[in-house]
Amino acid sequence: MTVVGGIDIGGTNMLAALVDDDHQLIEQAKYVTPPTGPDAVLGQVAQIVGEFKQRPSAVGIGIPGPVSGGVVTRPPNLGHWPAEFPLAAKLRQALNLPVEVGNDVNVAALGEWVAGAGRGANFMLGVWMGTGVGGGLILDGRPYMGAFGGAGEFGHIIVHHGGAQCGCGRRGCIEAYAGRASLERAVALAVAGGRTTSLLEIRERKGKDRLTSSVWAKALEKGDSLATELFDEAIAAIAIGVGSVINLLDLDRVVIGGGLAERFGQDLAGRIAAEAEPWTLVPDAGRKVVIAELGDGSGAVGAAALARAALLLPEAAG
Amino acid sequence: MTVVGGIDIGGTNMLAALVDDDHQLIEQAKYVTPPTGPDAVLGQVAQIVGEFKQRPSAVGIGIPGPVSGGVVTRPPNLGHWPAEFPLAAKLRQALNLPVEVGNDVNVAALGEWVAGAGRGANFMLGVWMGTGVGGGLILDGRPYMGAFGGAGEFGHIIVHHGGAQCGCGRRGCIEAYAGRASLERAVALAVAGGRTTSLLEIRERKGKDRLTSSVWAKALEKGDSLATELFDEAIAAIAIGVGSVINLLDLDRVVIGGGLAERFGQDLAGRIAAEAEPWTLVPDAGRKVVIAELGDGSGAVGAAALARAALLLPEAAG
Repeated sequence: MTVVGGIDIGGTNMLAALVDDDHQLIEQAKYVTPPTGPDAVLGQVAQIVGEFKQRPSAVGIGIPGPVSGGVVTRPPNLGHWPAEFPLAAKLRQALNLPVEVGNDVNVAALGEWVAGAGRGANFMLGVWMGTGVGGGLILDGRPYMGAFGGAGEFGHIIVHHGGAQCGCGRRGCIEAYAGRASLERAVALAVAGGRTTSLLEIRERKGKDRLTSSVWAKALEKGDSLATELFDEAIAAIAIGVGSVINLLDLDRVVIGGGLAERFGQDLAGRIAAEAEPWTLVPDAGRKVVIAELGDGSGAVGAAALARAALLLPEAAG
Repeated sequence: MTVVGGIDIGGTNMLAALVDDDHQLIEQAKYVTPPTGPDAVLGQVAQIVGEFKQRPSAVGIGIPGPVSGGVVTRPPNLGHWPAEFPLAAKLRQALNLPVEVGNDVNVAALGEWVAGAGRGANFMLGVWMGTGVGGGLILDGRPYMGAFGGAGEFGHIIVHHGGAQCGCGRRGCIEAYAGRASLERAVALAVAGGRTTSLLEIRERKGKDRLTSSVWAKALEKGDSLATELFDEAIAAIAIGVGSVINLLDLDRVVIGGGLAERFGQDLAGRIAAEAEPWTLVPDAGRKVVIAELGDGSGAVGAAALARAALLLPEAAG
C-alpha cells in the first residue's frame, strides 16, 4: 500500500488527511492556518507531516489562489504572501518528499471525482459555493488545468452583462450573485436602503460575525423575504452558468460543493438541476447534478490524490 | 502518401476537398446541397467521391447538426431529414470506405487547428459567426466532443439574463446578439419601430435577399447608426463569451471564423480581443485571438482531418 498525505490550506484552517490506495482516510486532522506568511505555513505543513501516524510517500497541497507549475500567485485570503511563491519546490526541500500543489477548488473537485460524488464521471464540473464561487473540471476523464494552470473560474463567467458588481471588479459574474461575500454586501445595501430582514438578528443570536450557511438556512426556513429573494437570485445565477457550461462542454456530471452545499444538501442540487435544464440546448442525456459527498474533506482527499500523481511526475520528486 | 477526402455539407452548398498528408489541398470543388433529404445527399457524396482525381483512403463529413456516433440529429438547415439519420454507417456502405461524420463547426475548428490559424495551439476555442454562432474546442491538444458528442455550443452561453430573444427560444444567448439571423430580426424590429437605416437599401442595391456580411460591411463603412449599434452589441456579446470561456478553460488561442470573420478579417479579431480582455480574470499570458485562415475551406479541410482519424478507428472502417 502507498500512503499519501493531502493538506487543504484554507484562509482559517488547514485540513490534513492521510489516505490509502483507495482514497480512503487513514486519519485526518485540523490545524489553524498561520496568518504570518508562507514560511510559517511551510513550518506548519512540516509539523503536520511529522505528526502523521505514518510517513507518507508524497504530499499534495490545495491552496486558495492561482497555481502554475507549483508556484502560487497572490493567494487573496492568506496574509503576508508575496506576489509569487514557489510552494512546491520549497516543500520538496523541507519535507524531502515528492510534492504537488494545486488550486483549492480544483483539488476539491478532484477529491470528489476520485472518492466522492464525481466517481465514474468523465466530464465533470465542480461548483464550490463559499465566500466566492469556484470551479474545477474533469474533462475527457482527466483533471483539466488549462493552458497556463488557471482553468476553472466558473464564478467569473458573466451571466448578466451590466449586472451586479462582483468582488473581482467586473459586473455580472456568477460570484456577484452567489458568493457569500457578495450576498453579504447585497444584504448590507438592502438594509441601508430600508429593507428589513431577520438575517442580521439570526447572525447575532448565533454569535457569528458573518452570514454563514446556517444563518441563511434559518432565515430561509422562516420565509424571510430578502433572504429568499437573494437566495433565488444566487440559484438562478448558478443555474444559468451550469446551463451555459453544459452547452459548451456537454458534461455528464455537475457536483455542487462548499458550505452552502453541505448545509442544503441534495435539495440544493435538485433545484440547480431543475433551473439549469431550461438553459441547456441539448436535452438531458444522462447528466446528474449532485451534492459533494466528502463535506469539508473534499480538498484534503483531492490534495492526497494530487500527491499520488506527484509520485508519477519526475519534476515533483523530492 | 495517404490521400483523404473531406466534404463540408452546408444548407446551400457542399464544399469538397481532397488533401495530402500535410492537410494541403490537392483539389477542391463546390456542389449544390440537394434539398430533398438524406438519400439525395448520400448520392451527391458518392458522386463527389467518384469525381475526385484519386480515390481517397477515407472520407470525412461535416454537417450542420448535432452528431453523435455518426448519427445526425435533425439538421435544422437541411430539408427533409428525419429526427435521426445514421449518416456515417450509410456512407460506409455506399462508398466502401472508412467514414467519420462531425458537426460542421466542430469540424471547421478542427480544420483551422490542423492547417490554419489554430496551428500549434493546445487549448483553442473556435467561434463561427454565421447565420447562428457556433463553436468548436481543442482542449489539452485534442478535439473535444463532450460526454454525448454535443460540445461546442458557444452561441448558447447566456451573457445577459433576461436579455434578447434567441432563435433557440431562450433569452440572452450570445447568438441572440451576434448571429446573422438575430441581427436581421433586430433590424426588422427597429425599422418597424420607426428607426431608419441604410442596411435595407444596401441589401436591395446589392440584389441580396438577406443582410449578408458585405451588406453589413457597407453600412458600417457609411457610419449607419443602427448598423453600428447592433454590430457593437454583437461584438460585446462575443467578447463577454470569450472572456467567460477563458476564465473557465484558460485558453491559449481563440479563432474567429464564419462569413463575418472572412469579411472583416484581423480587425474583427483585434476588436474581440480588446473587448474580451477586461472580462478575463487572469491577465493575458500569451493568448492569441485570430481570424480563421482557410476561409470557407476550414470545414472541408477539417472533415478531411476527421477522415484521417477514421483510418485509425475500427468502427469507422468500411
